[in-house]
Amino acid sequence: MTNQKNRIGIIGATGYVGMELVRLLSGHRRLELTTLVSQSYIGKRFSEVYPAFTKICDLVLRDMDLDAIADACDIVITALPHGVSATVVPELLSRGVRVVDHSGDFRYRDVLVYEKAYKLTHPHPELLAEAVYGLPEFYRDRIATARLVANPGCYPTCSLLALKPLLNAGVIKTDGIIIDATSGVSGAGRKADLSFAYCETDESYKAYGVIGHRHTSEIEQEAGFLAGQHEPLAITFTPHLAPMKRGMLATIYADLVPSVEAASLHELVARAYEHDYFVRVLPAGHYPDTRQVAYTNFCDIAVTADIRTGKVKIISAIDNLGKGAAAQAIQAINLMVGLPENEGLTTAGGSI
Amino acid sequence: MTNQKNRIGIIGATGYVGMELVRLLSGHRRLELTTLVSQSYIGKRFSEVYPAFTKICDLVLRDMDLDAIADACDIVITALPHGVSATVVPELLSRGVRVVDHSGDFRYRDVLVYEKAYKLTHPHPELLAEAVYGLPEFYRDRIATARLVANPGCYPTCSLLALKPLLNAGVIKTDGIIIDATSGVSGAGRKADLSFAYCETDESYKAYGVIGHRHTSEIEQEAGFLAGQHEPLAITFTPHLAPMKRGMLATIYADLVPSVEAASLHELVARAYEHDYFVRVLPAGHYPDTRQVAYTNFCDIAVTADIRTGKVKIISAIDNLGKGAAAQAIQAINLMVGLPENEGLTTAGGSI
Amino acid sequence: MTNQKNRIGIIGATGYVGMELVRLLSGHRRLELTTLVSQSYIGKRFSEVYPAFTKICDLVLRDMDLDAIADACDIVITALPHGVSATVVPELLSRGVRVVDHSGDFRYRDVLVYEKAYKLTHPHPELLAEAVYGLPEFYRDRIATARLVANPGCYPTCSLLALKPLLNAGVIKTDGIIIDATSGVSGAGRKADLSFAYCETDESYKAYGVIGHRHTSEIEQEAGFLAGQHEPLAITFTPHLAPMKRGMLATIYADLVPSVEAASLHELVARAYEHDYFVRVLPAGHYPDTRQVAYTNFCDIAVTADIRTGKVKIISAIDNLGKGAAAQAIQAINLMVGLPENEGLTTAGGSI
Amino acid sequence: MTNQKNRIGIIGATGYVGMELVRLLSGHRRLELTTLVSQSYIGKRFSEVYPAFTKICDLVLRDMDLDAIADACDIVITALPHGVSATVVPELLSRGVRVVDHSGDFRYRDVLVYEKAYKLTHPHPELLAEAVYGLPEFYRDRIATARLVANPGCYPTCSLLALKPLLNAGVIKTDGIIIDATSGVSGAGRKADLSFAYCETDESYKAYGVIGHRHTSEIEQEAGFLAGQHEPLAITFTPHLAPMKRGMLATIYADLVPSVEAASLHELVARAYEHDYFVRVLPAGHYPDTRQVAYTNFCDIAVTADIRTGKVKIISAIDNLGKGAAAQAIQAINLMVGLPENEGLTTAGGSI
Repeated sequence: MTNQKNRIGIIGATGYVGMELVRLLSGHRRLELTTLVSQSYIGKRFSEVYPAFTKICDLVLRDMDLDAIADACDIVITALPHGVSATVVPELLSRGVRVVDHSGDFRYRDVLVYEKAYKLTHPHPELLAEAVYGLPEFYRDRIATARLVANPGCYPTCSLLALKPLLNAGVIKTDGIIIDATSGVSGAGRKADLSFAYCETDESYKAYGVIGHRHTSEIEQEAGFLAGQHEPLAITFTPHLAPMKRGMLATIYADLVPSVEAASLHELVARAYEHDYFVRVLPAGHYPDTRQVAYTNFCDIAVTADIRTGKVKIISAIDNLGKGAAAQAIQAINLMVGLPENEGLTTAGGSI
Repeated sequence: MTNQKNRIGIIGATGYVGMELVRLLSGHRRLELTTLVSQSYIGKRFSEVYPAFTKICDLVLRDMDLDAIADACDIVITALPHGVSATVVPELLSRGVRVVDHSGDFRYRDVLVYEKAYKLTHPHPELLAEAVYGLPEFYRDRIATARLVANPGCYPTCSLLALKPLLNAGVIKTDGIIIDATSGVSGAGRKADLSFAYCETDESYKAYGVIGHRHTSEIEQEAGFLAGQHEPLAITFTPHLAPMKRGMLATIYADLVPSVEAASLHELVARAYEHDYFVRVLPAGHYPDTRQVAYTNFCDIAVTADIRTGKVKIISAIDNLGKGAAAQAIQAINLMVGLPENEGLTTAGGSI
Repeated sequence: MTNQKNRIGIIGATGYVGMELVRLLSGHRRLELTTLVSQSYIGKRFSEVYPAFTKICDLVLRDMDLDAIADACDIVITALPHGVSATVVPELLSRGVRVVDHSGDFRYRDVLVYEKAYKLTHPHPELLAEAVYGLPEFYRDRIATARLVANPGCYPTCSLLALKPLLNAGVIKTDGIIIDATSGVSGAGRKADLSFAYCETDESYKAYGVIGHRHTSEIEQEAGFLAGQHEPLAITFTPHLAPMKRGMLATIYADLVPSVEAASLHELVARAYEHDYFVRVLPAGHYPDTRQVAYTNFCDIAVTADIRTGKVKIISAIDNLGKGAAAQAIQAINLMVGLPENEGLTTAGGSI
Repeated sequence: MTNQKNRIGIIGATGYVGMELVRLLSGHRRLELTTLVSQSYIGKRFSEVYPAFTKICDLVLRDMDLDAIADACDIVITALPHGVSATVVPELLSRGVRVVDHSGDFRYRDVLVYEKAYKLTHPHPELLAEAVYGLPEFYRDRIATARLVANPGCYPTCSLLALKPLLNAGVIKTDGIIIDATSGVSGAGRKADLSFAYCETDESYKAYGVIGHRHTSEIEQEAGFLAGQHEPLAITFTPHLAPMKRGMLATIYADLVPSVEAASLHELVARAYEHDYFVRVLPAGHYPDTRQVAYTNFCDIAVTADIRTGKVKIISAIDNLGKGAAAQAIQAINLMVGLPENEGLTTAGGSI
C-alpha cells in the first residue's frame, strides 16, 4: 500500500449503478476516478446527466476506446448489460486491466446454467474458471488477487449473506429453502419505462418474476458451495417490488435440523460475522429495516426460529445499489489494491 | 328487501377503519348512516376530524349512549380496541341490535386460543359459539342470519382467501405452510406514534411481529377448518411493513401434493371463485399488485407452482382497509339485510 | 330529465384522464358509458390496460370510427392531444354529437392567443365563438345548452375558482397577480418518460415551465372576464411538481385594494360560493390540503391577507384529475343533460 | 491549521438536526465528535436510537453536565428548542466553549423582534450584539472569529441566498417581495405527532403558517441588511409542506427595477457567487430540484424574469437538514477552526 492513488474507470457510468459508483468514488481518498464511459452521453459532463454532482464530479463522458481506457485505468468497473460485458471484459483483460464486472456474465461456474438463465451463448466460457465471485465475505482472499471479479447480483448478495452461517454450520436443511425478497425501484435501472413511472409504482407492492427469476440460479450455485456440495441447491425464490427508491430485504425460511437448538442460532450467526465489518447481526428481537442500510455497504441480519413449526427465519437487508451493487464493488477493489476493505465506505447512510 | 333503508351506526368512527366505513356508507343507497360514536371527538362533526368529508358526512360525533344507539340503529359496527369490544358488543346485542365487530374478540371458536393470543380474559366466552366469522366467501349463509359477525383480520382475510381452494381440494400439504405478507401503514391505525411518522416510514421496508403475531392463530383456526380438520393448522407467518398507505399482499408457500399436476392449479382456483364477485383470479402469468385493489373490496389472486422445488405459490392482494376491514364489513351487512353482496361496493378503486 | 340513461363515449380512454372518466362513469347511475376509443390498445378490454377495473369496466377499446361513435353516443368526451382535438371535434359535431373536449383547442376566445400559446394553426377557428369554457361555476347556464364544451385546464380551474369572488368584487388589484402552483405527477399524463420515473420523481420538488407555461394565457383570458375587462390580465404564473400522484394547490398573491378591509375577505368568498356545491370555503384559519380533495370534484379555498404587506393570499386545492379534468367534465355533462350537477360526484375522496 | 482534531459536542443530538450533524461529523477528518447529549436517551448508544449508525457512531448519550461538556469540547453545537438555548448557551460560553446554536434565540439583532416572533422573553439580550448570524456566504469573516454563531433557519437560508445578489445590486424593488416556499417533512422535527404521520402526510401538499410564520421576521432582518437599510424589509412569506423527507425550495417574486435589463440577471447572480463553493447558479433554462441537493450543503439557484409582468423569479433549493441546518453548521465550524469551508462537505448527495 503506497500513497499513490489507484486509477479507476467505469464503463456504463450513467446508469444508477454507475452513478452510485461515482458517488462513492468521489469521496474515496485512495481510489481516483479517471475515466467515465457512456455510450448515450458522449461528450457531456457527468454532472450534466446527474446535476447533483455539479462540483463533485464534472468529468466528461467518453466513448468506449479500449486502448485509452487501459492507459488511464488500473481497474475498470463494467456496468454493462448482460451479454455485452461478456465481449467487452476480455478485451480489457487482454490489455492488462483488472476488471470488476456488474453483469451476470462471469458469476457462474457452469456455463450451461448461465446460458439457460440468461438465454445467451457465452463467447468466453474459458474465463468462468478464472473469474472470482465478488462477495468479499465469501471469497476475500481470492478477490484480493483476482484479475476478474464478478460482482454478485443484489438478491444473491442479500440472500447468501443470510444463509452462509447456517449452511456452513449445517443447522438448516438444504432442501426446501424459501427466499421471499423485496426490492426498491432503482433495481430496475434507469430507463423510460411506463412500468416504473411514478404513478404506476407509488402505492404499489407486487410480486414479479415469480417463476424463473435468473438470480435464482446464482443463489443456488453459491448456496450449494456453502452447504459443502458440488451441486447447486434447489431454492424457491420470489422477488417483489416495493414503492421506494433503494433497499432490499430478504425473508428466508428453512427447516431447522431437529437436533439443533433454536436458541443457539443468534449466537451462531453473530459469531460467524464478528470479524466482518459490513455485516451487522442485530440484537435479538430487532429486525432489519431497509432504511437503516440505505446508501451504505452494510448488510443487517436477524435470525430466529418459530419453534411451533420448526422453521428458521433469517431476515437480511441491504441497499440494492450499495452492498447489492456499487458499494460492494468498491469493497472488492479495496481488497484488490491492498486497502482496508472498508476504506471510503464508513459513512453513515441516510437514516432519514 | 324493501325500499326502506337499514339504519347503521359506527362506534369508533374516527379511526381509519371508521373513516373508511363512513366513506363507503356515504355512497351506499340502501344503508343509512345514522349514528357515529367517538370518545375522542364528542360534539365535533365528522368532517371536522376528516375535512375530506365536508358536505359528504357532516354528522356530529356522539358519546356512547347505548340506548340511544339502539334506538337509532338496526346494525352497529364496532371499531373498538380488542378487549373493549368484548364488553360493549354484548350490551348492544342485549338491546336487540345486530353487530359487526372489527376486533379480535369474537373471531375465535376456542376461547383459550383467543386469550393466549390477546393476553386478555374474555368476559363473554359464551358468545363465541354464536358469533359468525365474517368472511362472506366462507360463511355467506351464516352471516346472512347472524346476530353477531366477527369481521376478520386483514392478514387472515388476505391469506385465507388464497388458501381456501387449495386446502378445500386437498392439493397442498397442510403442514409447512408459510405466509409471507406485507401491509401498508394504515394497518397500524390512526395515532401519534413516532414509528409511523413520515420520515421514519418512507423508504423503509421491514419485518415486524416476526414471532407470535396474533393474526397467526386466527389464520390457523380457519385454515384448519378449510382442511376439514377440527384442529388448527400450524402455519409460519411473517408480516412486513411497506412505505404505502393502503394495501396488503400475501405470498404463500405450500408443498404440492405429489399426485397433483401443477398445471391444474390455476383452473382449480379460478373455478372455485367463479361465483364470488369480489375474488378476481388473475389470468395465468399475471400477479397481484396492491394498487389494483386499493379503495375496493376486491381480492386479487394468482397461483403457480415451482415444479423444480414442488412449492406452490399463491399470491393475493387486498386493501387492508377495504376487503381487510371496512368494505368487508359492508359486504357482510349487505348479506345481513338481504341486499346483493356487492351493493355499494362496485366502484373502481384508485388505480392511480 | 327522464329515466333513460344518456350514452357517453370517450375518445382517448387510456390516458389518466380517460381512466378517471371511466372510474367516475362506472359509478354514475344516469350516464351510460357505451364507447371507449384508444388508438394504442384497439381490441383490448379496458381492464386489460387498467387491471383495477376488472369486473368494473370490461368494455373493449375500439378504433376511431366516427360514424359508429356517433351512433352509440349522445355525448363524446375527447381526451386527445392538443391539435388532434381540433380536427376530431368538428367531425363529431357534424354528426350531431355533443362534445366535451379536454384539450386546449377550444378554450380560447382569441385564436391568436391560442396559436401563440400552442404553436399550432387552428383548423377551425370558427368554433371558438361557439365553444363554452367548461367551468360550471362560471358558465353554468351556457354549458347546459352547449354543443361544444372546452373543459378547462387544471391550473386554470384551480386558479380561477380562487380568483373569481375577489375579481368580481373588485377588492384586489388586477395587475401584479402572482399564481404559485404545485401539481402531482399524474398531470404529466401516462407515458414512458424518464423525467417521471419513480426514482427521478420521488423526494423531488421542483419548478418547471417557469416562463411561458401555456396555461398562463388561459388563466389570463378568464381572469380578464372576471375583472369585467375585454382584455386578458397579465399574470405571473409558476408551476411546480411535487412527489405525489394527484393533487394541485395554488397559492395566489394579489394586492388588496386600499379601501377594502382585510377582515371582510373571508365572508366575501364564502358568500360568493354558498350555492356552489363543489367549492368548499374553509373556516378561517384552515388551509387547503390536496389530500382532502383527492379523487373528488371539490375545490377547497381559503383566503387571508397579510396586513403588514397589503397582500391577499388565496389558496385553493383540487385533484388535478378530478375537478382539474375528468370530474369537472362529468359535472358539465350533468348540466348538459339536465341532471343535478353533483350527480355521481358526491362520494368522498381518499382522505388517506 | 494543525493536525490536531477539533473536539465537537452536540447538545440535543437525537433530533433530526442532531442526527444529521452526527452523520456529517462521522465522515469529517478534522473534527472529532467527543460528546453527545440527549435528555431523552441518557445512557443509550446513539446507534440504539438511530440503528443506521451502528459501527459508525456508537457514542453513549450523556446528560447535560456543562462542566464535563466544556472539558471535552472546543466547540459545542446546540440543537435545542427555542428558549432553552437562550439559557444553555450563555453557560457554555462562560465556560470558554465556542457555540453554534440552531435555535432562533440568537439570530436577531433587535430583541423586540425576537420576542414578538417567538413569544418569549429573552434572558440574555446582551448576547445578541455579539452573536454572528451563521450564513457563511454573508458573514464569513465574522463567523471565523465568533464565539457564538446563530445558525440560520432553513427558510431564511434558502430565501436569503437567493435574494442576496439582487438586493445587493439594487436591481429589484425592496417592497413587494414574495417568498413562496416548500419544505420536506423532516423540517417539523422528530416527534410523535399525528400531523406528520405517514398516512396523514403522504399525497398531501398544503400551506401552513400562512400568516405570521416566525421565519418571516428573520428573513426580513437580513433582507434589510442586504438592501443596505437599517430597517427590515416587509416581506410576504408562505411556507408549504410537501410529501418528501428532505428538501426545501423557495420561489421568490420581486419587481424588476425598470432600468435594469432582465437578460443581465443571470450573469449578475452567477458572478456574485462564483467564489462560493456551496452556491451553484444553474445554467440558464435549468431550475432547482430538491433532489439534486439532498444530503448536501449546496444551494442551487436560478433566476429569470417575466418581461410581460416585470416580475423577477428567483428559485433556490437546499436540503432543509443540510444547508438549512446541520451542514451549514459544519461549514461555520470549518471557518471557526481555520479549515477550508467545504472540508467534509464535498460528498455527493443522494441524487436518487
